[in-house]
Amino acid sequence: MTRSTRPAGRQRPGAAFGPVRDEARNARIIEAVLDLIVENGYGDLTMSAVAARAEVAKATVYRRWASREDLVADALETLMLAAAVPAGATAAGTLREDLIATLTQRSVCLHPQARHFSAVLAAATASHPQIADTLRERAIAGQREEIAACLHRAQKRGEITAERVELLLTPGRMEIAAAIGLTILQQELLGAVLDIEGVARLVDQVLLPLIGGIPTS
Amino acid sequence: MTRSTRPAGRQRPGAAFGPVRDEARNARIIEAVLDLIVENGYGDLTMSAVAARAEVAKATVYRRWASREDLVADALETLMLAAAVPAGATAAGTLREDLIATLTQRSVCLHPQARHFSAVLAAATASHPQIADTLRERAIAGQREEIAACLHRAQKRGEITAERVELLLTPGRMEIAAAIGLTILQQELLGAVLDIEGVARLVDQVLLPLIGGIPTS
Repeated sequence: MTRSTRPAGRQRPGAAFGPVRDEARNARIIEAVLDLIVENGYGDLTMSAVAARAEVAKATVYRRWASREDLVADALETLMLAAAVPAGATAAGTLREDLIATLTQRSVCLHPQARHFSAVLAAATASHPQIADTLRERAIAGQREEIAACLHRAQKRGEITAERVELLLTPGRMEIAAAIGLTILQQELLGAVLDIEGVARLVDQVLLPLIGGIPTS
Repeated sequence: MTRSTRPAGRQRPGAAFGPVRDEARNARIIEAVLDLIVENGYGDLTMSAVAARAEVAKATVYRRWASREDLVADALETLMLAAAVPAGATAAGTLREDLIATLTQRSVCLHPQARHFSAVLAAATASHPQIADTLRERAIAGQREEIAACLHRAQKRGEITAERVELLLTPGRMEIAAAIGLTILQQELLGAVLDIEGVARLVDQVLLPLIGGIPTS
């Protein structure tokens, strides 16, 4: 199936004519969203303000993004992808090493702007509840998936049972969420960057005890 | 030692002349801070704006609070005290019951305004790092102390060793912080109110496993 046979969806109709130029323009629009939200908060963000800041026509913004909610979700995802751990990047031999490498990579690579941006979005959830969905789907889900990938690799190595992994990844379970909440408390609320020593404490004192379920137990 | 022998500190010089009227006025000033921050964020907060909103002279605000940082800290503390668990309020017979009662009380009694207010402050920490100290000292420390009180009561009942309690309360340990981070993730970022069932899952899946250290182990 080639790209051209798919419904256009959020693809811009003009994409075929100048993809490189369009990519640069889209990056400029996302950059404008990030700047405006960090400067003025979510409440004041409008499509017009984004267009003006990115120096594009308002119609150009609307061609790709239907609403400011879509824009904010894509901006958050852009930041998170920049901090994502490349698949297979960690050659760790144990679950502990894998978790430390994975969480350190995210902590170190997460641009300060990303921390600020998601903190501002969190502040907006009280008045704009749909922003909570954006945070859950675009920021928290990514961290969750990286920890899940560590668990699956550990399961393949025989460090943890399949039943335990399944339990930990059941929706509504709180173990993985606690580790993510702790990184948010430390980094976004208290402004501490978790270095490798801080991440190791998090893994040893919280994540590994909660993961439990080693095959011999 | 009577109050009049102590240095005045942050007491207003005029306190002796109209304490009831002054209390009402101070409450109005704190209310103005809460309203303004929820409406406009921390960046735009000024002593003048607070005075105007509370309909008092600017000098009246400065008589008690030296800066907007002091004002914000007191406003946060006022909100947190309203949700605090009264000492001896829980007649729980086990650590589990005590933790569930304590965390549920705080979760249920925390006014939505308090959640919004602290989320807005969290968003301000990136540009105003001293706000992180305010959050740590006025909001997070209170939650920590309530959980510590549960641990001490459990220790008296013989449910947990003194050594384990001491370890868990060592600065820099991550176990209690993980539980607090989880409540912040759920309530302030994701906008979910933790009801008694949610608190019970938090206690059973995260807090009790991390607390560990029962005397027989």
